[in-house]
Amino acid sequence: MWYLAALSKELTDKPLARTLLNTPIVLFRDAQGHASALEDRCCHRQLPLSMGTLEKEGLRCGYHGLLFNGQGQCLEVPGQKKVPRKAKVTPFTLKEQDDLIWIWFGSEQGSTPDQDPPRYLYHSDEKYVYDGDVYHYQAPFQLIHDNLLDLSHLGYVHLKTIGGDAKTHMNAQMDVEAIGDKVTVKRYMPNSTPPPTYTAAYPFKDKIDRWQEIEFYPSHLRIWTGGIDANSESVTNPNRGGFHMRGLHCITPETEETCHYFWTISTNPTTDIENVKQKVVEQTRYTFNEDKVVIEAQHKSMKHFKGQPMIDIHVDTGANYARRIIKRLCEA
Amino acid sequence: MWYLAALSKELTDKPLARTLLNTPIVLFRDAQGHASALEDRCCHRQLPLSMGTLEKEGLRCGYHGLLFNGQGQCLEVPGQKKVPRKAKVTPFTLKEQDDLIWIWFGSEQGSTPDQDPPRYLYHSDEKYVYDGDVYHYQAPFQLIHDNLLDLSHLGYVHLKTIGGDAKTHMNAQMDVEAIGDKVTVKRYMPNSTPPPTYTAAYPFKDKIDRWQEIEFYPSHLRIWTGGIDANSESVTNPNRGGFHMRGLHCITPETEETCHYFWTISTNPTTDIENVKQKVVEQTRYTFNEDKVVIEAQHKSMKHFKGQPMIDIHVDTGANYARRIIKRLCEA
Amino acid sequence: MWYLAALSKELTDKPLARTLLNTPIVLFRDAQGHASALEDRCCHRQLPLSMGTLEKEGLRCGYHGLLFNGQGQCLEVPGQKKVPRKAKVTPFTLKEQDDLIWIWFGSEQGSTPDQDPPRYLYHSDEKYVYDGDVYHYQAPFQLIHDNLLDLSHLGYVHLKTIGGDAKTHMNAQMDVEAIGDKVTVKRYMPNSTPPPTYTAAYPFKDKIDRWQEIEFYPSHLRIWTGGIDANSESVTNPNRGGFHMRGLHCITPETEETCHYFWTISTNPTTDIENVKQKVVEQTRYTFNEDKVVIEAQHKSMKHFKGQPMIDIHVDTGANYARRIIKRLCEA
Repeated sequence: MWYLAALSKELTDKPLARTLLNTPIVLFRDAQGHASALEDRCCHRQLPLSMGTLEKEGLRCGYHGLLFNGQGQCLEVPGQKKVPRKAKVTPFTLKEQDDLIWIWFGSEQGSTPDQDPPRYLYHSDEKYVYDGDVYHYQAPFQLIHDNLLDLSHLGYVHLKTIGGDAKTHMNAQMDVEAIGDKVTVKRYMPNSTPPPTYTAAYPFKDKIDRWQEIEFYPSHLRIWTGGIDANSESVTNPNRGGFHMRGLHCITPETEETCHYFWTISTNPTTDIENVKQKVVEQTRYTFNEDKVVIEAQHKSMKHFKGQPMIDIHVDTGANYARRIIKRLCEA
Repeated sequence: MWYLAALSKELTDKPLARTLLNTPIVLFRDAQGHASALEDRCCHRQLPLSMGTLEKEGLRCGYHGLLFNGQGQCLEVPGQKKVPRKAKVTPFTLKEQDDLIWIWFGSEQGSTPDQDPPRYLYHSDEKYVYDGDVYHYQAPFQLIHDNLLDLSHLGYVHLKTIGGDAKTHMNAQMDVEAIGDKVTVKRYMPNSTPPPTYTAAYPFKDKIDRWQEIEFYPSHLRIWTGGIDANSESVTNPNRGGFHMRGLHCITPETEETCHYFWTISTNPTTDIENVKQKVVEQTRYTFNEDKVVIEAQHKSMKHFKGQPMIDIHVDTGANYARRIIKRLCEA
Repeated sequence: MWYLAALSKELTDKPLARTLLNTPIVLFRDAQGHASALEDRCCHRQLPLSMGTLEKEGLRCGYHGLLFNGQGQCLEVPGQKKVPRKAKVTPFTLKEQDDLIWIWFGSEQGSTPDQDPPRYLYHSDEKYVYDGDVYHYQAPFQLIHDNLLDLSHLGYVHLKTIGGDAKTHMNAQMDVEAIGDKVTVKRYMPNSTPPPTYTAAYPFKDKIDRWQEIEFYPSHLRIWTGGIDANSESVTNPNRGGFHMRGLHCITPETEETCHYFWTISTNPTTDIENVKQKVVEQTRYTFNEDKVVIEAQHKSMKHFKGQPMIDIHVDTGANYARRIIKRLCEA
């Protein structure tokens, strides 16, 4: 399966250390700009290669200077003429597209991808501008899935940004559908008060019709939210106008209990573009930090109360579908 | 048994999270000012309820908005009409009196108290003014019992406040008595030099006769100390004058290796009352921080040297009686 | 075996707490300046004796005032006339010489040394001035041995101080010899560019001939490095002139995974003596901090990749000899 390893903008002129699925990995670009990933250890004395330096041919260890190329082959052992045959480290398959760097973890080590990573075209769509970041979570990845698949929490957790009236959120009709490895959750909230982020970004007249359309895939979620002036047009029509936010949420496990949460937010301003973009990204950052506090506290509490029953409520439907998909994939 | 859960002044307009006897608990006041305690987890997705907000009817979870009353009953699940029958969390019995909030932990969960918590009348005695605080200890509760039942350490640990001449302390006659679950330790030090806290609080003429009267109960200790001008009257007479400090020390286990140490200090100034109170409280705080440093270091060292013999000395008599009482109660 | 316990300058008017070979120890000087070492716990209630105070007769516990002499005997229990026969703590044998304090750990507890600790005469050699320090390492002691026995890493890790051209370092001829418990590694680098520390300390004309002569013993290493003007005289002659640095490196395990690294650096300035000494010590400090970062990262990585093969390269010869000696000693 493909997981997100990094945002393209993270890979600059220095190697990047990141543990993915329990494996310490070093990510780096060669002189041609091509991204590579290796196990993050020198095969000589195990120093993390991420402490080394980038050269034209690859990555040089910061202890005794062994040089490795992007395929993990040792090209040079300073002080001796012959490079030992066993001098190599495990490479990983990357694919960079849409400003995203995907990494392949097959069922067996060294397996070749049998599919392409998903495309995400909004990063290059001229109607949108975007930015994003990566957060490190002291919580397992599925708690973030739960959080994103049930946006009813907006009214309790995110009142300062994208929240709104709690009752409106909780009572909105919710359509949930699971087909194959995909879950779709749709909620529409007609005649709502626009929340702070919305009014900061778009000149709404008064009340608005809001939509929340969530697509869950095992490696990421796509969340399309926004609003139009109330009763101005059909809120369920994909060609609707108004204010749009398209969130990409890629959650990659670090360990069983921690994960990396990569997010980008694309929005559609037509005037004052850079300013509106910055405002939306900044408020999204604030919002996702609120989630982080809640989810990490939830994880700590769940560990303490392990075995205590959890009751389900109406809004958990989407999250429960997703959990079943992940369970099925893990068992397969 | 009743344990101290909080000082009354700690419960204001926000819920308070505190782990007592290995159980995470949220303490809060309802709109009528009545204090309640619940297991600190929402029964939906285990977020600590202490991260929620207080409303008129009770405590609302900060994730999806479930509302609980002081008996742990869920009153509302936003987004659905019916509250599931199983939607509830465990409540605990509290009793608030004397500016103290006591909590009942019975031998079985949900048991009803078969006695009242102890009264402490000096918090409302017009002869006294008082204040206090709670310290979190990285040490088990019994090390604090040991410390408080043997005030001979004053001459080595607390020279800057309530200490005095070490030899005088160590050589003072000590009467120890254990009856039922109570231990009494009394020490009198005639003709002593008054220590800094004493001279700061009271206009002694010169040397003083000091008393230290300690009562140990399994949930708390009462320590009455003070001094009168040397040879002015009987130092053992409970109606003696002079400078008085009455300490209440409630020690409640958090885990096997940590505890909460609630303390208040009541004193009897007749002039410049607020100023003297503040001085006594401040010096008591300083003194108890000195104890904390010693006791936490002792705990760490005891863990390392586990199994190494500890020799007893003369001054351990009271502490050893108390340990026997706790052992007997634990076995019962 | 003798291990270094402290630099003489560390023992002043306060007791010093240090864990050596898994044993918490308190080091202190008596009124006559004689250094002693005891198990770091009071035999009464296990408070670390290092929290106590020094008196003329010895060390007094900071809790209840028990007084111990340098042989671990309790001399006084305040508050009682008789000192219990069992009131004592384990003493350790120290020997202070050459501004170094050595401690004896025999195969059995309480064993008497069957040899003297090694002498180190450069601390009192009038040709040299020196200073040093102790670093606490989150890494086992053998990783520091490896580092010091292979100075080829200078060209990758220490470019700002004692490094130089990486290729020159790696390609220098290396003579390695192991006799008994001693390993000798010698490297000579003719016609090298002098590195920053060298030019800062000595008025070289241009290129230099450098030497690196390393002696490994199980408790410490002696590293003699330096340079002379290129082709001015024989670089292998022990009576050579030029710029000299004699490093003493004593590495004493704290636990299986941590150690204390004591180092001193002696140098031979003839003019501007104090200034050159300070410069050399400061740059050595900087250099050894670079090693610390690398070695602690290596240790963390080795733990993660435990079991993964490590390939050997040419420069590991000396380090591998040393590992064999330690292994033989541990098994004996």
